[in-house]
Amino acid sequence: MIRSMSTLKINDKPYIVNPLIWSRRREEAYRRFVEDIEIGYVDRDIIDFIELIFRKKTVFSTSSCSGRITIVDAMFPWLRDEAFIVFKKHEPISSIEIMEFITRNTPTYRFWLIVSGPIIHLNALTLESAIRILSIARESGFKHSGIISISENGIIIEIISGVWTSFLLVDRSTPIVTDIQRIVDIANDILREGKARLQKLFNAFKELDI
Amino acid sequence: MIRSMSTLKINDKPYIVNPLIWSRRREEAYRRFVEDIEIGYVDRDIIDFIELIFRKKTVFSTSSCSGRITIVDAMFPWLRDEAFIVFKKHEPISSIEIMEFITRNTPTYRFWLIVSGPIIHLNALTLESAIRILSIARESGFKHSGIISISENGIIIEIISGVWTSFLLVDRSTPIVTDIQRIVDIANDILREGKARLQKLFNAFKELDI
Repeated sequence: MIRSMSTLKINDKPYIVNPLIWSRRREEAYRRFVEDIEIGYVDRDIIDFIELIFRKKTVFSTSSCSGRITIVDAMFPWLRDEAFIVFKKHEPISSIEIMEFITRNTPTYRFWLIVSGPIIHLNALTLESAIRILSIARESGFKHSGIISISENGIIIEIISGVWTSFLLVDRSTPIVTDIQRIVDIANDILREGKARLQKLFNAFKELDI
Repeated sequence: MIRSMSTLKINDKPYIVNPLIWSRRREEAYRRFVEDIEIGYVDRDIIDFIELIFRKKTVFSTSSCSGRITIVDAMFPWLRDEAFIVFKKHEPISSIEIMEFITRNTPTYRFWLIVSGPIIHLNALTLESAIRILSIARESGFKHSGIISISENGIIIEIISGVWTSFLLVDRSTPIVTDIQRIVDIANDILREGKARLQKLFNAFKELDI
């Protein structure tokens, strides 16, 4: 599977992605991916893309999301601790389900409706692959993509676009939005925009020999 | 100024940040920074930090923002083309100025109030510096930071956090928000959270020998 060792020299200090560790992690990630499909956990819109990535020799995927709409109960929409995802869908939503949700529930903090575009984490064996991936990601509309860490475990790339929007729905018990239908329509448009970029990236990956 | 050449070897193919090009770009960036201060263009909350960065040997800053609140007229808040920044401040805002703005103006598309945390672009000479910067950026709360490109011109790092929130204020001529004062208070809290992280990053950079 692995044909070459990725040995970087930085100011004459060797810098290595360890191919044995990398390869073990790749196998674990693949096993997890197959298990997730079996239990129906994987986000359907991204399965073909992840399968394509696993056919490449110098990169694999560790986590991925095709884009989603959530309601989060939190002070601020970026929080992970003291934040609760109380609603989640990878497909378009209806105003009825959102209306029902906010009339039946009161937030501990605030209810934010959040639409996120796709986020994909990849682990590359070589810096060369990582640079080529970054370049096609940017061309496909994922302008905030970057290498987020480099170690013997691999070169971790986050593929992400600016497609992300929050709407404050309820602050404590005060409704903030005058027109839920309008917010829902915009949220669905944003979700579809994210999925369109994912499709573009998928097509670009098909041509990529790494 | 530059003590070592950054020569990377990737699968035995040399990969080089050209120190002459890098150094010329560093000088240009510094000249631009000084000019921006002279004409009062630079965002005041970030001047000391950028000056500190220019005292490091293997990194310089190409662009930076300490965090800001804008109103953008656009279909979606991430757009750059067909999007107009119609209001911009690097300090807290008042509900009066926002109310005045939206009663006096009608958007072509939509008015989004957007609060962004700090964004800093750095150019590193060596991969070693870049990796150390990424690591302290992450520790200081800038979790989405990454290396966004690598070429002979340098290793470009984007330092960015999840501190970013949009509020839809007006869609065509329909006001969306019931309580502007509340939105303004939350926006100001978010701006302050971003500036607090910037301060943390600034302190971490003081200790960084690169």
